[in-house]
Amino acid sequence: MQPTPDFSRGAAFVRGEYLPIAQAGVPLTDWGFLRSDATYDVVTVWEGAFFRLDAHLDRFLASCDRFRLDPGRTRDEITAVLERCVSLSGLRNSYVEMIVTRGQPPWGSRDPRLAVNQFYAFAVPYVWIADEEQRQRGLHLRISGVQRIPSSSVDPKAKNYHWNDLTMGLFEALDAQADTVVLTDGAGNVVEGPGFNVFAVSRGVLVTPAEGVLEGVTRRTVIEMAQLLGIAVEVRALPADEVRQASEVFLSTSGGGVLPVTRVDGEPVAGGEVGSVTRQLARTYWEWHADPRYSRPVRYTSA
Amino acid sequence: MQPTPDFSRGAAFVRGEYLPIAQAGVPLTDWGFLRSDATYDVVTVWEGAFFRLDAHLDRFLASCDRFRLDPGRTRDEITAVLERCVSLSGLRNSYVEMIVTRGQPPWGSRDPRLAVNQFYAFAVPYVWIADEEQRQRGLHLRISGVQRIPSSSVDPKAKNYHWNDLTMGLFEALDAQADTVVLTDGAGNVVEGPGFNVFAVSRGVLVTPAEGVLEGVTRRTVIEMAQLLGIAVEVRALPADEVRQASEVFLSTSGGGVLPVTRVDGEPVAGGEVGSVTRQLARTYWEWHADPRYSRPVRYTSA
Repeated sequence: MQPTPDFSRGAAFVRGEYLPIAQAGVPLTDWGFLRSDATYDVVTVWEGAFFRLDAHLDRFLASCDRFRLDPGRTRDEITAVLERCVSLSGLRNSYVEMIVTRGQPPWGSRDPRLAVNQFYAFAVPYVWIADEEQRQRGLHLRISGVQRIPSSSVDPKAKNYHWNDLTMGLFEALDAQADTVVLTDGAGNVVEGPGFNVFAVSRGVLVTPAEGVLEGVTRRTVIEMAQLLGIAVEVRALPADEVRQASEVFLSTSGGGVLPVTRVDGEPVAGGEVGSVTRQLARTYWEWHADPRYSRPVRYTSA
Repeated sequence: MQPTPDFSRGAAFVRGEYLPIAQAGVPLTDWGFLRSDATYDVVTVWEGAFFRLDAHLDRFLASCDRFRLDPGRTRDEITAVLERCVSLSGLRNSYVEMIVTRGQPPWGSRDPRLAVNQFYAFAVPYVWIADEEQRQRGLHLRISGVQRIPSSSVDPKAKNYHWNDLTMGLFEALDAQADTVVLTDGAGNVVEGPGFNVFAVSRGVLVTPAEGVLEGVTRRTVIEMAQLLGIAVEVRALPADEVRQASEVFLSTSGGGVLPVTRVDGEPVAGGEVGSVTRQLARTYWEWHADPRYSRPVRYTSA
């Protein structure tokens, strides 16, 4: 008799099978690895419910179309796999990723049209971009000279794993004692960081970059919350200097919602304290998790 | 008793173990997959001998340094793993890849400095970028409007899997009935394609792009052969229009050496026949495989 698999650290769906996360792998020869030829999306589960699952599925299916990747299953079938991963893990707060890779063409061919695409998914414990201390005091952000891969090369609206620029920028930031990094567009504007969008409160207006960024679901949630709360929003180019002079700066991410930034390039943002707009949006973000318009309970089933 | 593993389709080295290629995988949670945070190199074995192994190891170790990845083994230890993969497979003509991935930091951390890097390798049957018919008639190349990821974002000299731009360009080329694609730099110059560098014979001079490209070992071999054969070489920006008006065009790649191009964007290159410089370099390329300066026999050992 096989021992019962232990899904408590996470559960994965790999080519038709549910496996403990530590046993889940992608073939070395899958172009998803060898050419980073893949797309993905991440939805969170908080207190036993998916948050804005529809928005994540919409974007995931759009990313698949953009990169000519086929998940090989319907929206409802994808949802069922994600729910099963969460349910197997038993996690009440979870980070849930869905992935399509190119797979590989028949041996000897290099034609991506002949590849059989592969669908993967996994649910692991909720991932915070910032630890508790960082969330309290606010993050120290570095603005990097590394240029984010431009839209003319890779479409940032379709979620992808092309992160070398972000990772090299992150090394630079960590070496400089910052917590994380935001990259620039080569024209002096900030764009995005590893796993987040960025916002600044500048002359009373909330600003976030328009171009060269992933259209984050949390970014969209922030914009919607601001509109509801009567905070003026501008989606436009955001010069690095404007971030340095802003009265508030924060990040938006599925990995923690609205995360305050209190230092930029070593200098305090305004007074160096978490600002009131940031606090109000962070509070509202978590309140929305209880709203049935955005929240979809996971059915946890045994066996 | 375990059945004897079948390595005939290829052998891989995965976290300390030798496995048949079909069983080799990378963990779903390795940043090498989830952030394409990896580097690699490919060396070939032809008629039982590595070709220019030293040059590939030099570049691989330089790529590791550039991306702050640690193969965790010496140059000689890497060589031993590669040789063992080839030997297990029994392949006389083989495509041999070495890889370092970031691995992953301890759970909850997003600090790449805390990750334990992982070394992988595999040997599979020799991969040709072009099939036999294409090699005879010459490839049909499309010059794409997709911009290759610029050096300001990702260092092209350190070999990496950031290929979405190349893959999207390849789809475009295949849809247009071309065989493969070369990308441009956003300023009207060609740079590189999926797995190859490009050369043009223009007004009697052999030209290959200087910037924005991988410094291919086959590219370097072509330059060295040309110098020996008394062919003038210029390493500089190569405008797309100059490629269209060239008297000869070819690709250089570990996946077949010197591969003729006889059509560019649907139009024949000069007379549409494989040119004499291309033929001479292709012949010399294979001759060099027997030269002990470049060739290192694989020790095939049983068990």
